[in-house]
Amino acid sequence: MTLLYKSLSRRVLLTSAAMKRRITTDARQILVSPPLKSIDFPDIWTSSSFPDYSFITTSYDTPQTATVIDGRAIAEEITSGITSEVRRMKNSTGNVPGLALIMVGQGRDSQTYVRKKLGACEEAGIQSKISTLPENCTEDQVLNALSCFHEDPSIHGILVQLPLPQHLDEGKILNSVHLEKDVDGFHPINMGNLAMWGREPLFLPCTPKGCIELLIRSGVEISGKKAVVIGRSNIVGLPMSLLLQRHHAIVSVVHAFTRNPEQITREADIVVAAAGVPNLVRGSWLKPGAVVLDVGTNPVKDPSCEYGHRLIGDVCYEEASRVASAITPVPGGVGPVTVAMLLLNTLESAKRAYNFT
Amino acid sequence: MTLLYKSLSRRVLLTSAAMKRRITTDARQILVSPPLKSIDFPDIWTSSSFPDYSFITTSYDTPQTATVIDGRAIAEEITSGITSEVRRMKNSTGNVPGLALIMVGQGRDSQTYVRKKLGACEEAGIQSKISTLPENCTEDQVLNALSCFHEDPSIHGILVQLPLPQHLDEGKILNSVHLEKDVDGFHPINMGNLAMWGREPLFLPCTPKGCIELLIRSGVEISGKKAVVIGRSNIVGLPMSLLLQRHHAIVSVVHAFTRNPEQITREADIVVAAAGVPNLVRGSWLKPGAVVLDVGTNPVKDPSCEYGHRLIGDVCYEEASRVASAITPVPGGVGPVTVAMLLLNTLESAKRAYNFT
Repeated sequence: MTLLYKSLSRRVLLTSAAMKRRITTDARQILVSPPLKSIDFPDIWTSSSFPDYSFITTSYDTPQTATVIDGRAIAEEITSGITSEVRRMKNSTGNVPGLALIMVGQGRDSQTYVRKKLGACEEAGIQSKISTLPENCTEDQVLNALSCFHEDPSIHGILVQLPLPQHLDEGKILNSVHLEKDVDGFHPINMGNLAMWGREPLFLPCTPKGCIELLIRSGVEISGKKAVVIGRSNIVGLPMSLLLQRHHAIVSVVHAFTRNPEQITREADIVVAAAGVPNLVRGSWLKPGAVVLDVGTNPVKDPSCEYGHRLIGDVCYEEASRVASAITPVPGGVGPVTVAMLLLNTLESAKRAYNFT
Repeated sequence: MTLLYKSLSRRVLLTSAAMKRRITTDARQILVSPPLKSIDFPDIWTSSSFPDYSFITTSYDTPQTATVIDGRAIAEEITSGITSEVRRMKNSTGNVPGLALIMVGQGRDSQTYVRKKLGACEEAGIQSKISTLPENCTEDQVLNALSCFHEDPSIHGILVQLPLPQHLDEGKILNSVHLEKDVDGFHPINMGNLAMWGREPLFLPCTPKGCIELLIRSGVEISGKKAVVIGRSNIVGLPMSLLLQRHHAIVSVVHAFTRNPEQITREADIVVAAAGVPNLVRGSWLKPGAVVLDVGTNPVKDPSCEYGHRLIGDVCYEEASRVASAITPVPGGVGPVTVAMLLLNTLESAKRAYNFT
């Protein structure tokens, strides 16, 4: 066996963790590589994940120069196209697309999102059904709800509102959504086909699909550009990075284990922030002229607001809008387009089901 | 609709292609984003993909400082562990693992690889079967061969030797390999589970799995390090980038549409070259002290060699070995470990089949 401990440069150091793995390897374990799930540490962004910002590098005297990417207006235009298509479908086949939502528990965020999705369906003429289950429901209850919707021919898309309570196996539940109704695109087959060259998933996950649409509608060239995705969740960061790669961007994914996220982000032409950390991305993280899509929706207390809180993004808008060339606001940026993409995926699924073009 | 054409910085320009898409969008096409497969341009590395190297930046007077990662020795050690496990399995259950290979046509490279794999199976005590089909065979013939091996309980792994002739639908054929025998790990479900946090594929693709093992055995820390994967094939580049991310590297994938591959690669602590372009990665592409894994095996004419050609890698070894801290040679680096991983995947599959631990 060849060991390189001594000869490695200081840049690539042997850690004590690696040593430990080596030491604890038993005779029957042929590899020293650990199983994947065993190293899926949670991404916890701590202050050590990013530099001290007690000083602010962007002067607020600088005017805001970034064009605001108006997600609401773009979503309205898309929804209007969907509404026409739903009408055409109804006139031609007598059927409309149907979306089913499964909501477990009464989380306020989930309720808000579900209400928005139901409202958008109604606006577009898409039928919707909802199954609400108590917070302490069993996995079987969720799977039963799924089964009902699988068998229901008027339902073309099924969405399980995330996050699920911890006692439920999210992976198992999402894997059980039938591929042809998986309008969220979270099934591993959809994800694999998104990742692989020459393949095409049945559904693209809604947020990344919306982000690409926002970029293209804003005239942003993706091919050959450096893109940084901040965060690597299965529902946003991962599919976003895969989709940007399919569009020929050179993508780096920044996560909580990245030692110099600011430096890496500052090289990007396109920044997608989806870490779930309010104001993580400061002005100093951005290359002048970068395009910034802010996927974060973090509630912060604000007694002056209706529900006692307001939503802010992962990007410090005040600073970023003075450095970027274009930026999505929160709210009113990525969010509305994500909902529009859910409607569109449901429409596309119904078109497939009725063989309607 | 919000358009940003005018306000975008020069860094992010609206291309004529984007304009064209916009213009040709018909009324029923709600999005301006193109379908994914339509933009899967082939990665053709041309001289414009990388700078002119008429001058060589690395002085050959500099001594070779990189430690050579001895893939053959590591593969032998792994294979020896596999052999012991196969023996233990045989003694305990009376069965040995079985691997089936499907080879279409008589490509010299394919023949060489298949011979190596069969030889390695024999050495480890793994049973192997091979189905050879003529170059002009039909898709059904390949699928029939697959079916036979699916039904054969003595076979625990099936490998379709790639590349397949152009008239065969590679995607369809690879999708038909049953998941529990997909020892190459090329099925989209395997790929999706590799990409997704908290999931684990049944099989890791052999080359990336071998590369991680080489890194860990060489004492190279992966977590938090910058890694660059050059090339984005479904069989190496893509799963390599996904696997490095699961190990918490910050990964960038360099492809033929990358305008400054040299600059991006020079930032990496770990470089995996898998573009299939001989000597693409020069000394000047590397940060001093980087660790370099060369997956390329490109035949170049050499009348002095037995078959009139010899294999060289994607990395200019002469130069890189003067800059890197560790490097795999070609041949004798990644190749042997890839074959060992195929044996290991087959063993693991057989253990699952016989419920043997």
